[in-house]
Amino acid sequence: MPPETLTPERILEATEEVLRRYGPAKATVVDVARTLGVSHGSVYRHFGSKAALREAVTERWLDQAHAELSAVAGAQGPAAPRLRDWLAALFASKRRKAGDDPELFATYMVLVGENSGTVDRHIATMIGQLAGIVESGVRQGEFRELDPATTARAVWDATGRFHDPAYAAEWSRPEIDAAFEAVCELVLRSLRA
Amino acid sequence: MPPETLTPERILEATEEVLRRYGPAKATVVDVARTLGVSHGSVYRHFGSKAALREAVTERWLDQAHAELSAVAGAQGPAAPRLRDWLAALFASKRRKAGDDPELFATYMVLVGENSGTVDRHIATMIGQLAGIVESGVRQGEFRELDPATTARAVWDATGRFHDPAYAAEWSRPEIDAAFEAVCELVLRSLRA
Repeated sequence: MPPETLTPERILEATEEVLRRYGPAKATVVDVARTLGVSHGSVYRHFGSKAALREAVTERWLDQAHAELSAVAGAQGPAAPRLRDWLAALFASKRRKAGDDPELFATYMVLVGENSGTVDRHIATMIGQLAGIVESGVRQGEFRELDPATTARAVWDATGRFHDPAYAAEWSRPEIDAAFEAVCELVLRSLRA
Repeated sequence: MPPETLTPERILEATEEVLRRYGPAKATVVDVARTLGVSHGSVYRHFGSKAALREAVTERWLDQAHAELSAVAGAQGPAAPRLRDWLAALFASKRRKAGDDPELFATYMVLVGENSGTVDRHIATMIGQLAGIVESGVRQGEFRELDPATTARAVWDATGRFHDPAYAAEWSRPEIDAAFEAVCELVLRSLRA
């Protein structure tokens, strides 16, 4: 039986597994290679350095919800409920990550701190999706005349409590859902024509 | 010459000085007493324990801007510019604390983590001041009919990037003032009748 092909995705899955097992301080490329039953040279052919591998696994983790959110952002229909759905889907995705596996979440917080460029790109993608929703709302006459990019950034900033990992400890509190609704309502009311 | 009277305020000033010099992990009540030239028993007569002293100095630090903000909240005139002034004064106060003395700021972040009850009371006071502004705007017909307490909480949450110490590292970035303006505009637009 020929060995399974070594793809970047398989390496990243193994890297996450190794990070989960050893923690971000101790995980090495050799551990990743051992988990896959390959030489560390094989891993380096896909990711040129340990730093590159850590960056790629961070990007993969941050991007996990992109496809789902992108589908919400690009859906048909009025913009206001779509904006709310998008914010709710983002919040739900972040909460799941933080709540289902707190140790892995803490590990990724360390990686996120090391890879600010990756984080900035992720945030730019998120704000781009928001801007698309705002722009369609303006075009449909549902939102007032406003600059989609500036508004999207302001909406992102104003909803930080519900997506910024710095607030993860608050996401299991009973009052958080009412707080989310109140901020959504504040934001949507502001955009309406 | 009679010795200067030992007041709680003098003890708290000395405590801040000791925290600044030794850091939150090493500062002791004996250090505070030595700085004041008194016995540690004299300090304990005002603050029953090291924990009580640390809590009191944290409260003092958090409350430093209360009086100034309270004056803004209670001023005469239209509510919208008052709300903006209040948010700007809060942001300016937090920025000063973080920027002028980053080491002391880091020290207080440790104390804040130890004294969540004190922090909750501080936040309740801040939201109470916001609710007062919102309520006067509703009464004057300047803001739409809304619940002042719920709205104040939502405004607090939506402006977290500009007062929550977790974001202190961003407060020196060049784009932060435009981001603050955009969120203020978003919030004010939402409240207007």
